[in-house]
Amino acid sequence: MTRKAAIIGGGVIGGGWAARFLLNGWDVGVFDPDPEAERKINAVLSNARLALPALSDVPMPPEGKLTFHGTIGEAVEGAEYVQESVSERIDLKKKVYAQLQQANPGVLIGSSTSGFKASDLQDGSPAPHNIIVAHPFNPVYLLPLSEVSGSPKNPPEVVAKTVQIMKDIGMFPLVLKKEIDAFIGNRFLEAVWREALWMLVDGVATTSEIDDAIRMGFGLRWGQMGLFETYRVAGGEAGMRHFMAQFGPALKWPWTKLMDVPEFNDALVDLVATQSDAQSGAYGIRELERIRDQNLIGFLRALKERNWGAGKVLLAHDAARAAAFHASADAPNGAPLIMAQMQVLPGWIDYNGHMTESRYYFANSETVDAFLRLIGAGMDYVAGGHSYYSAETHIRHLGEAKLGDRLTGTLQILSADEKRFRSFVRILKGDEVVATVEQLCLHVDMTAGKTVPASAEVWAKLSAIAKAHAGLPQPDGAGRAVGQQR
Amino acid sequence: MTRKAAIIGGGVIGGGWAARFLLNGWDVGVFDPDPEAERKINAVLSNARLALPALSDVPMPPEGKLTFHGTIGEAVEGAEYVQESVSERIDLKKKVYAQLQQANPGVLIGSSTSGFKASDLQDGSPAPHNIIVAHPFNPVYLLPLSEVSGSPKNPPEVVAKTVQIMKDIGMFPLVLKKEIDAFIGNRFLEAVWREALWMLVDGVATTSEIDDAIRMGFGLRWGQMGLFETYRVAGGEAGMRHFMAQFGPALKWPWTKLMDVPEFNDALVDLVATQSDAQSGAYGIRELERIRDQNLIGFLRALKERNWGAGKVLLAHDAARAAAFHASADAPNGAPLIMAQMQVLPGWIDYNGHMTESRYYFANSETVDAFLRLIGAGMDYVAGGHSYYSAETHIRHLGEAKLGDRLTGTLQILSADEKRFRSFVRILKGDEVVATVEQLCLHVDMTAGKTVPASAEVWAKLSAIAKAHAGLPQPDGAGRAVGQQR
Repeated sequence: MTRKAAIIGGGVIGGGWAARFLLNGWDVGVFDPDPEAERKINAVLSNARLALPALSDVPMPPEGKLTFHGTIGEAVEGAEYVQESVSERIDLKKKVYAQLQQANPGVLIGSSTSGFKASDLQDGSPAPHNIIVAHPFNPVYLLPLSEVSGSPKNPPEVVAKTVQIMKDIGMFPLVLKKEIDAFIGNRFLEAVWREALWMLVDGVATTSEIDDAIRMGFGLRWGQMGLFETYRVAGGEAGMRHFMAQFGPALKWPWTKLMDVPEFNDALVDLVATQSDAQSGAYGIRELERIRDQNLIGFLRALKERNWGAGKVLLAHDAARAAAFHASADAPNGAPLIMAQMQVLPGWIDYNGHMTESRYYFANSETVDAFLRLIGAGMDYVAGGHSYYSAETHIRHLGEAKLGDRLTGTLQILSADEKRFRSFVRILKGDEVVATVEQLCLHVDMTAGKTVPASAEVWAKLSAIAKAHAGLPQPDGAGRAVGQQR
Repeated sequence: MTRKAAIIGGGVIGGGWAARFLLNGWDVGVFDPDPEAERKINAVLSNARLALPALSDVPMPPEGKLTFHGTIGEAVEGAEYVQESVSERIDLKKKVYAQLQQANPGVLIGSSTSGFKASDLQDGSPAPHNIIVAHPFNPVYLLPLSEVSGSPKNPPEVVAKTVQIMKDIGMFPLVLKKEIDAFIGNRFLEAVWREALWMLVDGVATTSEIDDAIRMGFGLRWGQMGLFETYRVAGGEAGMRHFMAQFGPALKWPWTKLMDVPEFNDALVDLVATQSDAQSGAYGIRELERIRDQNLIGFLRALKERNWGAGKVLLAHDAARAAAFHASADAPNGAPLIMAQMQVLPGWIDYNGHMTESRYYFANSETVDAFLRLIGAGMDYVAGGHSYYSAETHIRHLGEAKLGDRLTGTLQILSADEKRFRSFVRILKGDEVVATVEQLCLHVDMTAGKTVPASAEVWAKLSAIAKAHAGLPQPDGAGRAVGQQR
C-alpha cells in the first residue's frame, strides 16, 4: 500500500520535503494557507524531478499523488508521518501540533525547525513523545542530512521510526544525543555568518569575495570529509595530535571576531543585499537553483562513484530499492533477455540535450555486464584471472534519447562457442529501438593474455542461453559493415 | 626559457606548491633542513601527478626539474619567485627573507603564512615591497584559492606580478583589499573550529558526527556557491532582504558559543585525537589523501563541465595553455589528420584500471568533433539548424589504455559526398593503435529531420580533404562486419 506523509507549510523547505516523499513513491497531503502555496510547491517539485532521479541508478518508483487541502485535519488524514515546516514561531508550531494530534492521534510529527529544541516544541502537548526534530538542509530533495533531535520524552521507538522514515526517502538521519539550540549544522552556519557579517561591515571583503574564499578553497573539501578528517589528512604523517599542537595556540589569537556580534539594522541589510545583487543579480533565482542543483548532482555523483560520504547514502538507497527490480530481470527462454534498466543522466547528454553517442555504447556495456553476471562471469570470475574482452563492436543509431528518458537493454546471443560469443543488444526507449549494438567478446586468460575456453560452469549457462536463442530470427542489422547497402 | 621557483620549507604545504609549479612546467629549487624533506616532497608530488593532470583537458607541459639544495642561497639562484612555507614563527620567517634577499636581491617572496599580516612579515626588511602573503589551502595542487594580501608597502606592480604567477600555475588569486589577521578563509575555519571544539567538550557530538553534519549538508553546497549566494537561493523568490529579515534575529539567539573559547589542554587534545582515531583510523594517511584527491577531482570535474566556480578557473587555465597545441593540429594533406590529444582520466577507467570500452567511442567523438569544427560544421553551424548525425559505427579494440595514458585521435576520410562521410579514426597510444573506429555520419536538417546536402563552404572543405585522402591505402579493418573472417 502506498504510504502517505502530510506536509504542513509549503515554502522552499516544505516543498523540498514534499518532492522527496513524492519521488520516493509516497502520497503527500499539503496544508498551507498561502494562496501561492500550490504554485510554489510545484516549482520546487519541477526542479526536484530534474534532479533527484539523476542520482539514482535503479528505476525510481512511480511518483506518489500530491493533494492540497483546506484544513490541517484533511491533510493529515491517513498519514503515518507529518513534516512541519511553518515559520519559526513557537506559538504557531504548537497550534499546528495540537490540530494534527486532534485529527490524527498517534501520528509522528517531525519539525523542520532551524533552532528550537524538541523539548520546547513538545511543551504543553498531550502526546509530547510523538513530536521530534527532523532538521533538513536546502535543497531538501538533494542534500541527505536530516538532524534528528529528540528530548527525554521521545521513547527509542519514536526515534527509530523517524530514522527509518528518513532512510526510506534516501536521507541520512544524524541522531543527536544531547539537546542543543540550533543542533549542529546551523551552529557552524551561524558562526560563519557572524564572522562574514563582520567582514562586510569592516569593509574587509564583499559578499562575492567571501563566497570565492569559500568555494575556491575549504568549501570544496567539506563536501567530502568535513572538518576533523580534513585536518587529520592535513596533519599528514605526524597525525592529529601534532596538528592540534600546531594550531592550538591560535585559539588565543585574534582570528575571529566572534566575541561580539554586529548590530542588525537596515544599514546591514542594505549592505548585504546590495553586494549580493552585484554578485548574483545577473541570474534569476530559478536559474541559480538549477545551476546549484546541477553542481550538487555532479558532486554527489562523484561521491557515489567512490562509495564515499553522501555517495554511500545514495548507493545504500539504490540497493534497498534494487531488490524489487532484480526479481523481474529474468525473461522466459527463447526471448532476448531484459538485462538492464537505465535512465539518461545529466552527464550523458550533449550540448543539444541529446544522449551523446558514446553513451549508447555505455548502455550496451551495462547490458552486457549484467549478462556476464548472469552467466557467472562477473567480478568474482574476473578476480580469478579470466574475463570476457570486447574485440569488435558495431553500433547503429536509430533514434534519440533525451535527459530523463528510461532505457531498457535487451540481449540476444547470435552465436557462441567456448572461447567467444557474439551478442546483439537493443537499447529501447519504451517500444522504440534507439540503437542496436552487435559485439564480439572473447574469453581471455588475463595473465597469459590469450583467448582460452570459458570455465565449464560459465559455458554451461552461456550455451543454454545460446541454444534457447538459436530459434530467434537473425536481427535486422546484424552482420553489417558500416555503410553497407541492404 | 623554463621559469624557476624556489620553495623554502618542504612540508605538506611546501610540497604542494612544489608540485603545482613542477606540473605546470616550472623548475623548482627546494631548501628545507629536515633530512626527511626530499622523501616528504616526493610523496606529495606522486599524489599530485595522479591528481592535477586529471583536471586538464589539454596536454600538460613537460614537468619541470626538481632540485634540493643545502642552502637558501643555492635554492633561490635564478628563481623569479619564492614561496615560503616554514613554521608559523615570525622570527624564523624574517631570517629566511633576509637570506633570500641577500642571495637574490629583487626576488618576489610569497608567504604561505596562515595568519601573519604582510606588514608584520615585512617589518625590518630592506626591501619590504617584495614580500607579500600568498596563502593557499591544502591540497595546494588541487584547490585553486590563493589569498594574496599585501600591505601599503607593496606597490601595485608587485601585487599584479603575484596575481599573474598564481594564474600561470592555475590558481585563483583573491586579492584582499585590507590587511586582517588570518585573512578570510582561516577566519571561518577558526570560527567553525572553536564551535566544534565546544561541541566535543560539551559532549554534544563526536568528531565523526560533526564531520557528517558538514559533509551530508551545507559542506556540499559550499564547494560551488559559498555562503551568500547559497542564502540568496534559499531566500527564493522573496530575495536576500527577506532572507536577512528572517534570520536577522538569530544573531541575538544562543546559536553559537563563540563568545568564549574552550581551554586548550592535554584533555582536549586527547579527546579530539581519540575520536579522530575511532572515526578515520581504519585508513592510513596516504590512503585518506588519495580518497580526498579523487573526491576533489570529481567535484572539480563536475564544476568544469558546467564552467562554474573553481571549474571556470580550470577552463581558463586550459584555454591559456591550449594555444600552443592548436598551432600543431594541422597535418600535411594526404595524411590522416591529427585531430585530438587526450589523456585517460579517472572517470574513464573500469574496476581493472583499464579504459572502459565506451570511452574509446568517446575518444572517437572528440576526434570527429574536432574534425567537424575544422570543416566549419561546429557549434555555430549546429546553431544554424544543420548537423552531422552518426548513423552507424564499427569499433575494433586492439590494445589497452590505462589511467594517465596520453592518446591521439587521427582521422582519415574513406568516402564523402554532399550528404554524408565515412571516417576512419585511429586511437593511438604513442605509435600503438589501441582502437579503430569507422563511422558513417549523415548531414541532417535538424528541423525537417532529414538528410540534406551540406552547405557549399562545408562541402568545399570536406571534399578537399576527401580528395587528399583518396590516395591513402584502405585501412586494415575498414568495411568489416563484426566477427567477419579476414
